[in-house]
Amino acid sequence: MLSKFYVEDHIKNALKEDIGFGDITTENLAEETDFLKAELNTRNDGVLCGCDVFKQVFEVLSDSVKIKFYFKDGDEIKKGDKIADLEGSAKDLLMGERLALNYIQRMSGIATETRKYKRAIEPYHAKIVDTRKTTPNFRAFEKYAVKTGGGALHRFNLSDCAMIKDNHIKLAGSITKAVAKLRCAISFTHKIEVECDTFEQVKEAVEAGADIIMLDNMSVDLMKKAVEYINGRAIIEASGNVNLDTVNEIASTGVDIISSSAIVAKAPTLDLALDM
Amino acid sequence: MLSKFYVEDHIKNALKEDIGFGDITTENLAEETDFLKAELNTRNDGVLCGCDVFKQVFEVLSDSVKIKFYFKDGDEIKKGDKIADLEGSAKDLLMGERLALNYIQRMSGIATETRKYKRAIEPYHAKIVDTRKTTPNFRAFEKYAVKTGGGALHRFNLSDCAMIKDNHIKLAGSITKAVAKLRCAISFTHKIEVECDTFEQVKEAVEAGADIIMLDNMSVDLMKKAVEYINGRAIIEASGNVNLDTVNEIASTGVDIISSSAIVAKAPTLDLALDM
Amino acid sequence: MLSKFYVEDHIKNALKEDIGFGDITTENLAEETDFLKAELNTRNDGVLCGCDVFKQVFEVLSDSVKIKFYFKDGDEIKKGDKIADLEGSAKDLLMGERLALNYIQRMSGIATETRKYKRAIEPYHAKIVDTRKTTPNFRAFEKYAVKTGGGALHRFNLSDCAMIKDNHIKLAGSITKAVAKLRCAISFTHKIEVECDTFEQVKEAVEAGADIIMLDNMSVDLMKKAVEYINGRAIIEASGNVNLDTVNEIASTGVDIISSSAIVAKAPTLDLALDM
Amino acid sequence: MLSKFYVEDHIKNALKEDIGFGDITTENLAEETDFLKAELNTRNDGVLCGCDVFKQVFEVLSDSVKIKFYFKDGDEIKKGDKIADLEGSAKDLLMGERLALNYIQRMSGIATETRKYKRAIEPYHAKIVDTRKTTPNFRAFEKYAVKTGGGALHRFNLSDCAMIKDNHIKLAGSITKAVAKLRCAISFTHKIEVECDTFEQVKEAVEAGADIIMLDNMSVDLMKKAVEYINGRAIIEASGNVNLDTVNEIASTGVDIISSSAIVAKAPTLDLALDM
Amino acid sequence: MLSKFYVEDHIKNALKEDIGFGDITTENLAEETDFLKAELNTRNDGVLCGCDVFKQVFEVLSDSVKIKFYFKDGDEIKKGDKIADLEGSAKDLLMGERLALNYIQRMSGIATETRKYKRAIEPYHAKIVDTRKTTPNFRAFEKYAVKTGGGALHRFNLSDCAMIKDNHIKLAGSITKAVAKLRCAISFTHKIEVECDTFEQVKEAVEAGADIIMLDNMSVDLMKKAVEYINGRAIIEASGNVNLDTVNEIASTGVDIISSSAIVAKAPTLDLALDM
Amino acid sequence: MLSKFYVEDHIKNALKEDIGFGDITTENLAEETDFLKAELNTRNDGVLCGCDVFKQVFEVLSDSVKIKFYFKDGDEIKKGDKIADLEGSAKDLLMGERLALNYIQRMSGIATETRKYKRAIEPYHAKIVDTRKTTPNFRAFEKYAVKTGGGALHRFNLSDCAMIKDNHIKLAGSITKAVAKLRCAISFTHKIEVECDTFEQVKEAVEAGADIIMLDNMSVDLMKKAVEYINGRAIIEASGNVNLDTVNEIASTGVDIISSSAIVAKAPTLDLALDM
Repeated sequence: MLSKFYVEDHIKNALKEDIGFGDITTENLAEETDFLKAELNTRNDGVLCGCDVFKQVFEVLSDSVKIKFYFKDGDEIKKGDKIADLEGSAKDLLMGERLALNYIQRMSGIATETRKYKRAIEPYHAKIVDTRKTTPNFRAFEKYAVKTGGGALHRFNLSDCAMIKDNHIKLAGSITKAVAKLRCAISFTHKIEVECDTFEQVKEAVEAGADIIMLDNMSVDLMKKAVEYINGRAIIEASGNVNLDTVNEIASTGVDIISSSAIVAKAPTLDLALDM
Repeated sequence: MLSKFYVEDHIKNALKEDIGFGDITTENLAEETDFLKAELNTRNDGVLCGCDVFKQVFEVLSDSVKIKFYFKDGDEIKKGDKIADLEGSAKDLLMGERLALNYIQRMSGIATETRKYKRAIEPYHAKIVDTRKTTPNFRAFEKYAVKTGGGALHRFNLSDCAMIKDNHIKLAGSITKAVAKLRCAISFTHKIEVECDTFEQVKEAVEAGADIIMLDNMSVDLMKKAVEYINGRAIIEASGNVNLDTVNEIASTGVDIISSSAIVAKAPTLDLALDM
Repeated sequence: MLSKFYVEDHIKNALKEDIGFGDITTENLAEETDFLKAELNTRNDGVLCGCDVFKQVFEVLSDSVKIKFYFKDGDEIKKGDKIADLEGSAKDLLMGERLALNYIQRMSGIATETRKYKRAIEPYHAKIVDTRKTTPNFRAFEKYAVKTGGGALHRFNLSDCAMIKDNHIKLAGSITKAVAKLRCAISFTHKIEVECDTFEQVKEAVEAGADIIMLDNMSVDLMKKAVEYINGRAIIEASGNVNLDTVNEIASTGVDIISSSAIVAKAPTLDLALDM
Repeated sequence: MLSKFYVEDHIKNALKEDIGFGDITTENLAEETDFLKAELNTRNDGVLCGCDVFKQVFEVLSDSVKIKFYFKDGDEIKKGDKIADLEGSAKDLLMGERLALNYIQRMSGIATETRKYKRAIEPYHAKIVDTRKTTPNFRAFEKYAVKTGGGALHRFNLSDCAMIKDNHIKLAGSITKAVAKLRCAISFTHKIEVECDTFEQVKEAVEAGADIIMLDNMSVDLMKKAVEYINGRAIIEASGNVNLDTVNEIASTGVDIISSSAIVAKAPTLDLALDM
Repeated sequence: MLSKFYVEDHIKNALKEDIGFGDITTENLAEETDFLKAELNTRNDGVLCGCDVFKQVFEVLSDSVKIKFYFKDGDEIKKGDKIADLEGSAKDLLMGERLALNYIQRMSGIATETRKYKRAIEPYHAKIVDTRKTTPNFRAFEKYAVKTGGGALHRFNLSDCAMIKDNHIKLAGSITKAVAKLRCAISFTHKIEVECDTFEQVKEAVEAGADIIMLDNMSVDLMKKAVEYINGRAIIEASGNVNLDTVNEIASTGVDIISSSAIVAKAPTLDLALDM
Repeated sequence: MLSKFYVEDHIKNALKEDIGFGDITTENLAEETDFLKAELNTRNDGVLCGCDVFKQVFEVLSDSVKIKFYFKDGDEIKKGDKIADLEGSAKDLLMGERLALNYIQRMSGIATETRKYKRAIEPYHAKIVDTRKTTPNFRAFEKYAVKTGGGALHRFNLSDCAMIKDNHIKLAGSITKAVAKLRCAISFTHKIEVECDTFEQVKEAVEAGADIIMLDNMSVDLMKKAVEYINGRAIIEASGNVNLDTVNEIASTGVDIISSSAIVAKAPTLDLALDM
């Protein structure tokens, strides 16, 4: 998901953002020959995510920094764990430190939050997935973090799966008409999902042949009823009012997918730090 | 801070990210002549931020969408408030909706969090400021949001203010040497800040002529002692262990600046939604 | 599929490619006030495609050129038809002419070729679709042209539909294992297609629950047998040896989809010309 | 013509186009340690073109793929020939395969078509050249392929040679005035070509001192008459109605250059394939 | 030469360079409604160049600034002349002022220097031209300024005219071989220039059929001899040791072209200023 | 100041500018195996600047060119000195030569000019600094050259230091109000400078607490009076009418900083050349 050439360009732009006309402190205090060792440690429990991106930040700056990771993406780490050893040019270590941490802290934060949701629904077969509520121009990193945390993924963007919402239904005339029109217009490689607010909509969507049915903001009882009715004829996604308190009960209804913007949009960063 | 030409490029890239090869749902269901009205409402209390960016998303897509805001950046909004009326081409409204919301939700989330810290220290003269712990390639938006929320700003990046940390001190030999070397090397238009962990460091930094002294992870008592000692000879920034529970007591020590990565890195998004 | 902001950037780069340090002929012979009328005519029969892109080339150059189209994308045009009237600054018309034609000729060529295939299979329910054999950095234009010509679309790229080929089967151990592993790993919004060379593979793919089965380079008889066997349990794509001579018989086997790289990769451009 | 740094950027953009959010099939089925061998074979006779670009696609992805070519650009290859051996990471081979082929198939297709024209005029001294009818943002690759196929090149774009067409003549008043005005205005390093429809225009162009005279859509007899008249005072280009049936007779008139958009715009791709 | 879309991108990048995270002075002191009038005046005599670029800087910032020029590119202006009136938003005027001036001062400086050389050789038919010694990524602006100043232009870059230098001669074996090889290899639309240090080289270059012969660092007498010998069989460029003291005598030798890097590389900027 | 990744992108764009569709001379005359040695020599006395950039130009082209420098940035070099030895592929040496020289000549020219000013004020403690009058999109290179020449630096752009000019004073109402408003609005890490034309303004600026006071176009006597009055309460910058004749007397007034646009905008390039 995170191709090396894609990440490289992202890092270059971010370095321009953070370095501007130069690191006036480090460039004037560090000699080219100054050498530094550092440890990447975690100040909190969580799920590690972003090791390759962290490494690549220093590779873009120079080839002087060697990094050895003791954990890998997806590993659970505990407060005080040493995550990695770094050594290399003091200049490059100090100039890349903040950006490398900004990536790994944020990605680990999302992986950590996702893992909590995954644990919370573990007895059930449902999967926790993300949404399109991501940070502009940071989606690939966030989706990768959700997957690393143990979540599954929703569509990448507006072009890889059709999603019929309220307004689309109005524009098409009915769910039935919208599904029929899309089935004909979109690629046979793409699925159609219908967002349903009521049981009647669920019934219509199933009859219309939707591949995925979203139960939007429904009560637990209504979700159960819908799951029973659909009975395997479509993949079922539950959406709305999903948090760590509610997610287990939602999973218990038998839905296949539970989508949550919170695992990305409300995940605090994980406190990792470089100790030199 | 958010120049129109800068924001435009950011939006174009983000639209490519979110639209990919097209919105297969909307493009196949909405006619060019379909017209829609929508309201931007808030589902939570908070501080609004990002109105111009929200508007500009639709301007990049086309010139068909008219938007009228009832609040402006910095305004406090209450759950249920109508923030804006939109009307225009159904196609453009549906294709731009998610991205426009992604900007305004995230920016308003940061502004809202910042406002809480600002309120928490209100009797004191200290200001709450951000740090360089930002989302890669999203810093300008996040800093703008901090300012909108009532915060002040720390340096933009590594080139506009020197910040002497632990490792710089080791590289230079001492705080005194580091400050002297930098004062000579950097632009006369730039300030020098020294990160101090101990009272001895504070004393050395003051004597060395630092413009700003950061009290890093000090106890409240030690901060008071440092403030008293410095006595106006340098701007004083408190850093470390800053949260809504501790910030008031920190402010009470008389420091000028309290920096917090949490107002950006841990701020949940604010729930704004388009109701069509 | 062809968002205005995406096309604009493509055109700007293409203008840099074609104009370089300036149009040394036109810039030195045309005055700012010279005015020109032109007609866009077709020298061949075909299907028109690319009107908006054609227009946008001149819009990027200036706002001086007015264009009125008498046909629209997808219309069948006959040798000698006047497609559009243009009038405006001589300088901009002459500088944009070649690039505007390069887009519309190529897109119309693909639409024309696709229409032939569509006609050739018309009695049958099969659809003709494109492949990933496109011109690097020109795919969106080519896919749009296929759709305009009456074709349907295959996946956009490697991220919106899984396609299990020979080597993937070897890596996973079997079709069954590959499908199972992917069903678990990829987004629930994405489908899985299996490329099958033999009837045994078809059987295994159906049992494994593939969404789409590609019959790769099979004889007509084998295809019929496969269609019968699959019996609606998966979408069936025929691939290999597809040309205007064979496509009707392939369609007669009852397959749902016939993919052809030829409609893009081997389509000659359509001869449209600006007569001033 | 194809500088490494130019090609690299083109490939990166094309990989973004083809990989999007990741190759969901390969990334989930291939381990980092899976290793693959493959052969690049040709399914048709033709002229090979694009070996370096083919290689560079895999270099952009990683440094894991080793490629050994048995032919070089410009070589004639026969159906069944093994063109190259590849070995390396399964993941990178599978992810780069399609794009690498898209370049080499298209470039080889153009080289092959060009070679046919070159052969067709071989007894004569005329050269076959391309035109500006190229695929937007793909011109350098196409021109390189024409040269590889044995063709010569027309101007690169609007800035490296002046070309006076019908409308320029009208704007300037006459061919004589146009040539005089341009000779004064353009760089002394650039040539002037005049597009002539009639014998009178040819005479005027010669007298005016044109460096190159294009005989546009003239009959063979008229071309002969023009060649005789010009008699070495200008380079002579024949244009219009050039195809494999007509090109030999056109060459027999004694013209120096025969330009054909067909060698690029109507060349089918050459069927090369990776067999793993 | 300076296409609007090319200049726009250049300006956007330059604004990012000059504005960074915002104009902290103006953004905090000017209200959106503050309005300003300004005059563009010249503090020196010179030749004006860059009016359109100057305007476009403000257009990129906003549409609020109206500018009326009283002179146009190429006009000679005298110390104290009012060049233009500006009025519009104070914020945009103050933020764009420096960049707009940076363009127009530098371009006018080059135009001014070029005009001096042009005047200095006026009785003779020689033309003064630039070289490839330009500022990286600023060449189009500098070449435009040379032309505006009354100079002619040398080749744009390495692809639009062949230039055989010392090392090329060594690589090819001789001037004769180099010219022959290039005549065959390069486009018929491109010329061949040979750099000659000695009279023997001049003779060989003429016989070889060079289009242009550069007399490199020759004495005035030797140049005269060469001009006489060449006698119209090639365009003659004089190069080396060209300055305002020597240029007239060089022109008197009868050469066609005198190339000087100084008109770009050593031209001081012209002092234009905005008085508000 | 000149990060490797920043310089690399600048060079790539500049190579596109200078190479276009290829170096038609070298690509057709040099074999891949041709090998060349060259010396970088200086034709003038001056200060060397840009060694790393010079090297990087060849690194972007290929890894074939080895360069050994005998001087380093900031060294004074004498006419005839050999600066560096180069050896490598003839093709890459010839294609990169001009661009590599364009960087190093221009940067060395600025360093040389700056050194002259530095020498001229040497007995005094004042420093010579640059301004924002730089070449668009070339500022980082120019500022680096000023520093290499021995100058100090002014602000990088509009975001790292506030500068209150005439119009800002009018907008705010007074210097006092402007300083107060900015002190509150801008980052505590940024300084405030006030441009003063009169002694009264100087007094007001000091009282208002300006960090830096610019004495703009003042007589030497007035500057002395101002220096005496300010008496260390602010950094003092002298600006206006600064040239090699005046700069010593200005320095003698006791000002801290003397800013000059001339060291960048009017510095002639230094004549360095590659002798192969």
